Amino acid sequence: MMKAVDIIIKKRDKQELSKDEIDFFIHGFTAGDIPDYQAAAWAMAVLLNGMTDQETTNLTLAMAHSGEILDLSDVVDICLDKHSTGGVGDKTTLVVEPLVAACGLPFGKMSGRGLGFSGGTLDKMESIPGYRVDLTREEFIQQLKTIGIVLSGQSGDLAPADGKMYALRDVTGTVPSMPLIASSVMSKKIAGGAQVIVLDVKVGVGAFMTTLEDARILSRLLVSIAQISGRKAVCMLSDMNQPLGNAVGNSLELLEAIDTLHGGGPNDFVEHCLSAAAYLVMLGKKAKNLIQARQMVEDALKNGKAWEKFRQMVITQGGDVKFIDQPDLLPKARFIETTNADKNGFVHWIDARIIGETSVDLGAGRAKKGDPVDHAVGIIVHHKVGDYVIAGEPLFTIHANSQEKLGLANRQVRQAHKIEEEKCEPLPLFYEIVD
Amino acid sequence: MMKAVDIIIKKRDKQELSKDEIDFFIHGFTAGDIPDYQAAAWAMAVLLNGMTDQETTNLTLAMAHSGEILDLSDVVDICLDKHSTGGVGDKTTLVVEPLVAACGLPFGKMSGRGLGFSGGTLDKMESIPGYRVDLTREEFIQQLKTIGIVLSGQSGDLAPADGKMYALRDVTGTVPSMPLIASSVMSKKIAGGAQVIVLDVKVGVGAFMTTLEDARILSRLLVSIAQISGRKAVCMLSDMNQPLGNAVGNSLELLEAIDTLHGGGPNDFVEHCLSAAAYLVMLGKKAKNLIQARQMVEDALKNGKAWEKFRQMVITQGGDVKFIDQPDLLPKARFIETTNADKNGFVHWIDARIIGETSVDLGAGRAKKGDPVDHAVGIIVHHKVGDYVIAGEPLFTIHANSQEKLGLANRQVRQAHKIEEEKCEPLPLFYEIVD
Repeated sequence: MMKAVDIIIKKRDKQELSKDEIDFFIHGFTAGDIPDYQAAAWAMAVLLNGMTDQETTNLTLAMAHSGEILDLSDVVDICLDKHSTGGVGDKTTLVVEPLVAACGLPFGKMSGRGLGFSGGTLDKMESIPGYRVDLTREEFIQQLKTIGIVLSGQSGDLAPADGKMYALRDVTGTVPSMPLIASSVMSKKIAGGAQVIVLDVKVGVGAFMTTLEDARILSRLLVSIAQISGRKAVCMLSDMNQPLGNAVGNSLELLEAIDTLHGGGPNDFVEHCLSAAAYLVMLGKKAKNLIQARQMVEDALKNGKAWEKFRQMVITQGGDVKFIDQPDLLPKARFIETTNADKNGFVHWIDARIIGETSVDLGAGRAKKGDPVDHAVGIIVHHKVGDYVIAGEPLFTIHANSQEKLGLANRQVRQAHKIEEEKCEPLPLFYEIVD
Repeated sequence: MMKAVDIIIKKRDKQELSKDEIDFFIHGFTAGDIPDYQAAAWAMAVLLNGMTDQETTNLTLAMAHSGEILDLSDVVDICLDKHSTGGVGDKTTLVVEPLVAACGLPFGKMSGRGLGFSGGTLDKMESIPGYRVDLTREEFIQQLKTIGIVLSGQSGDLAPADGKMYALRDVTGTVPSMPLIASSVMSKKIAGGAQVIVLDVKVGVGAFMTTLEDARILSRLLVSIAQISGRKAVCMLSDMNQPLGNAVGNSLELLEAIDTLHGGGPNDFVEHCLSAAAYLVMLGKKAKNLIQARQMVEDALKNGKAWEKFRQMVITQGGDVKFIDQPDLLPKARFIETTNADKNGFVHWIDARIIGETSVDLGAGRAKKGDPVDHAVGIIVHHKVGDYVIAGEPLFTIHANSQEKLGLANRQVRQAHKIEEEKCEPLPLFYEIVD
């Protein structure tokens, strides 16, 4: 008879676990038959001794199958998904989803909330009064059928083992394990029925992966899990040393996304969205190659179809459309203060982590699960690394709801900026693509 | 503020924990403020990443101080203890304690019960009807004062952290960690007030340490913990590939101990006891050197004083003295069957592990904590590795309480013996002394 302790010992002794052993362990853990202390010892052994790609894939599938698996095969030809490992100013989904849907590919996405310095898509969408992120599974499927675009929270109990395991990892020092991170990401995607997944793996001080090397290891593992389990994944390794785009904070990011869908938006953010959307359109088999896919998503942006899709989604999910048609109506912070550059020079650094943490301090993010967020507050960074700024030119703008927080945020965001006389190269948008 | 998860992370990342961190963790774990799942992850990190001797000493002291510390300074000049890492046929305490006490060194010892293939001193003593192993702390101290010898179970709550940690390690695959093993052993000894500890570290198939290399590592660590914490420890690395002495089983081992105290007993066992007792007498400062100490314990054996001490202890602890004065009265098994050698040859191997497990199968030991034991059953092995045996000569005798168990034990013990034509060296009694 299989025993949990023997599976822990096997991993402790650097042996490869079989599919049966992993299934037994995850099934028992989900059911509560295997107690947290055994799972914690096992997770530490996995963190320190690693797993093969095959083991990690088996772990992913075991966690995916710990609850219901969403089957969208009646609704879509190819079930698409995208995932970001989390960053600062990352409102990509708000633009990519409408771009892809506007190319004729139905795209239903379940997103999450922000935690720590990393923002969450649902919080950004909830800046729109009335917008529902709690669709039932039936509503999700129905909306995907009728309008081909959905952006909601997780419906039902997808990959419950992952949620339980993550909570345990968080308090046992077992978060930064590649097999555990990768299986966590992929189990939710597979439980959501995804066949094609574009993964935005952020790299830098404002990301979970701070080095390119780690991001590469994770990306290769994510792609490998997809391959072994008969799915397709592409990882885009993108910079997260400075924030993506200019806006950080819920309604500020929503505004930037709306601006982008109207053909505006910061260059880096626009390019980021077009690249990700093009991959999805190509892998969703709406285009023969990436060049054609890129043309399609650019067209969908220019001809306003992506904006129309976004608008249609907001209306269908109960959002009050006047707030996106006249974004001036969106909640505004009481104190809005712009700080100018105090000298001429090149921007060498805009620390995404400090900006993200400042955004939490302002109330835009949450320090712990379940905390409320303030949709109005945040930061606008007016430059990108590599820009030349002139003394007196706006450097950043703080949106705060208290004078005290305004002052604190001001000092922090100023410290996040480094301006020097020497010329400085811009940061790359993407480091590489792993597929 | 210190957080348990940060201490886990520090050990996960191969850093040395401070005394404060270890105290915080063990104190929190004992009090139940740090949950089992955090302790389990920590234990796995310790197992895989190790600890320095200083860390292990701090861990030992933290566990020792998790409960009351026994202070015998009013009763004894030097508080002695001995500990065996556990083996098959190891009834050493029954002889060593009276030997030492007979040399004028008061010796109160708390022993444990057997688990798995490894026997326990208390179980052996309980073969004597009436013998109490549940003395209160007051009774323990009083008896030590008056007659200078006590052999009982653990009184009070010595090192409760160790008991709790051991139970957790047992189910999380974190038993075989040198720092965790060493701190477990030493914390109980230090909590018991020991200043001088003679450690019998068994090596071989019938021991917890199966290789000399592991036994050396453990021994050096045990000696180091003693040094750093201001105590004195000597480790005797002794063979446990074949059983110690001839008898395995509770009343059979008691009989062998009584025989030894009367000047009989198997040579290996007698020598083992004299060596250990001599170290204790020397370290207890009753002799100037080991040679003098050895002479003293030999005298105590020959002149019957050791036997008198043993007898006095049995009476004082409520044991019915007629059972040791006329050991024929001790419980006897229903089936006693001797198996003879079926060929001439040299004994190459008598597998201590198989003998120990067979003894459990017969009912002399317990598979899990709390199981009852049968005091009458067991095995007598008539030879030692290196002996020449002649076909028809007794090889071993099984004492069983069922025909079925007798048959099974017979087959197993036969398999434990390997007899070959080629000459074979005896196994060493001790491999080395680490002090």
